[in-house]
Order: sequence, then structure tokens, then C-alpha cells
Amino acid sequence: MIQWKTLSKKVILQGNQFLTVENHTVELPDGRIIPDWPWIITPDFVNIVAITGEEQFLCFRQTKYAIQGTSLAPVGGYMESGENPLEAAKRELLEETGYEADTWTALGSFPVDANRGAGVGHFFLAQGAYRVAEPNSDDLEEQTLLLLSRKELEDAIAASEFKILPWAAGILLALHFLEKGNERSFENSSRLI
Amino acid sequence: MIQWKTLSKKVILQGNQFLTVENHTVELPDGRIIPDWPWIITPDFVNIVAITGEEQFLCFRQTKYAIQGTSLAPVGGYMESGENPLEAAKRELLEETGYEADTWTALGSFPVDANRGAGVGHFFLAQGAYRVAEPNSDDLEEQTLLLLSRKELEDAIAASEFKILPWAAGILLALHFLEKGNERSFENSSRLI
Repeated sequence: MIQWKTLSKKVILQGNQFLTVENHTVELPDGRIIPDWPWIITPDFVNIVAITGEEQFLCFRQTKYAIQGTSLAPVGGYMESGENPLEAAKRELLEETGYEADTWTALGSFPVDANRGAGVGHFFLAQGAYRVAEPNSDDLEEQTLLLLSRKELEDAIAASEFKILPWAAGILLALHFLEKGNERSFENSSRLI
Repeated sequence: MIQWKTLSKKVILQGNQFLTVENHTVELPDGRIIPDWPWIITPDFVNIVAITGEEQFLCFRQTKYAIQGTSLAPVGGYMESGENPLEAAKRELLEETGYEADTWTALGSFPVDANRGAGVGHFFLAQGAYRVAEPNSDDLEEQTLLLLSRKELEDAIAASEFKILPWAAGILLALHFLEKGNERSFENSSRLI
């Protein structure tokens, strides 16, 4: 199959560090030209499903601007300039919870929007997490750290209590890995970091 | 916990039907004001994991502008004006594959971006799918319809072959429902449509 070709790009909205919008002129495989294809540039981010040695999942109960009420959430945040995804994941876990972890597994990296980009989410499982410090988060939202059992986590996913798409995806990636990782290709050497 | 308050909104980019950007002035619970909070308006969309009576999963191999090469994808697309999510899901399944389905289950609706909105994804499982027509899709991308076994689907998820975040999320929601639905709260009357 043939990729679409980007003929030109132009910034049409230079917002703050959280958003830039470009207009792309795109050529389809059959030669047709689309002159007004919006392309969204937002920061890449990490989501971390962290599990203590006692099989407790570190989650937050928090508010977010895009939802009414509160939601459960995994640890996560935007990558900072110069960081790779694993560095960002370790920083966010430490800042937000005061935990470090023994074993890190990459669960995949996914563009958010098939048509317009909108950043890439990098997902990690952190096993053997243990507390080393007080949390030191600069997040603007109120949040409360919770320790959930695996059954509580599965029930929460089933009840849509993780209300934001990347958060639900991160939890489901981790659960799928924990259930299938040992028998299927999830677990290969390139994924264990 | 206290929600953030939207003090004012202003359109700062009126693109085509696929993108509008607003600037929101937001008040935090502690009284601080953020004057430049970008808010992204993109169309809501549906993703459908459709399974035939022979336990085959309907998927596409396709190109998309945001990825290199090809990706596996579930059925899906933007909602049209005046449609509810289930109507959009049934339309997309019929247009893209020529299939209808006996049993529809809502797997959840999730805003894409916790901070900026960027549309809501509505996810469905369609069981007992059967062919009634030729596909009649107006999608711009090349795509090939595939029928995958459950093991092939699980292996594809584990190998990150569903490369876009909502696509991976949709497949994982469906697999979690199929594994846990009968024992846990996924399966309650409000979810079966």
C-alpha cells in the first residue's frame, strides 16, 4: 500500500508549548491533492501502570478539565525536552508518587490520532514498585493516591472508571500483558528494559 | 474535589469541519487564573470490534497519515451530524465491511485528551456479524478486510500491530469484555443495547 505524500506544511496556529497546528498539503496515492489537512502537534506523554511487590496498583483519584467529576488515573504526564520515554516514565512515577520500581516493561507507543497526530503516548508497566520519597508533583489538579488490588482494577476498568482514553488504554495494555505476556509475544527481550 | 471553572472561551482557529481550536480562560480551585488554556474540538468517533458467528474478528490492514507503513485497525470512523454513537457504529460497520450484527454492546465512551478534549471515542462490540452487502466506503485510505482468529488478534495486540491509540484501546476493551464480561460488572443490562 502507498503512503500519502506531504507536499508542504505551514504553521497556522502557534499556541503555547502545549499546542501548535499546521496545515498540510497532502497528495493521495491516486494523485488527488488535499490542500487543507490539519495536523495537531501536542507534547508526547507517558503513562505508567505501577505495581508494588504486594501486587497493589498505584492509581490516582483526580479531577481533569476534560471530564465532569473525578476519574481514576494511572501515573503519567508530558515528556520534557531531551527526555526519552523511559526517563520520563521514571521521573513521573517518582514525582507523582514518591515510588521507584525494579522492573520496567515497555507496553507500546501509539500516535493518538490516526489522521492528525496529536502526540504519541508511551506506555509502561513498572513492577516491584516501592516508596523512596514523598510525592513532589507540580500538577495543577487535585489528586489522591490509591492502592488497588488487581480485582479492584479490573472492576474499575469494566465500569469505565478510568474515563480518559489513554488512561483506559494503559490499564488494559498492562492487564493484557500480565495475563498473556508469559505465553505470547508481548514478552520478548526487546520489551524488557 | 473541585472542578476547574471555565471563565471564557474564544475561537482562535476555525479550521475545516475536522478542527476548531478555542482558547479558554480557566479558574483553578485555589483561585489562580490560567488565561491561555487551549481546547481542541475534533469530531467524535466510533470504533467497532465486530465478530462473526464463526468467531472471526473483522479487521483492516490499512495506511493512515499519522503512521509509517500499514497498521491493523478495527472498523471505525467519525460520527455524522445528528447521529448517536450506536447509529454511527452500525453505519460504519455496514459501509466499511458490508456486515450487520445481531448483538451490540457498548464498551465505553472516552474523551481523547484529559486536558484539551479532542473529541470523544465511543467503543462497541458487535457479535454475530454477517455479510449483507458489498462494502461501500468513502474512506480515502487504501484498506484490505481481514478475518482474524482470537489468537491472531491477541498476538497482534501484543506485537503492537494496532498502531493507533484508539484502535489498540478498542481491541483491548473488547478482549477484556470477552474474558471478564460474564463474571464482572462489564455485563449489565445498561450495556447490552
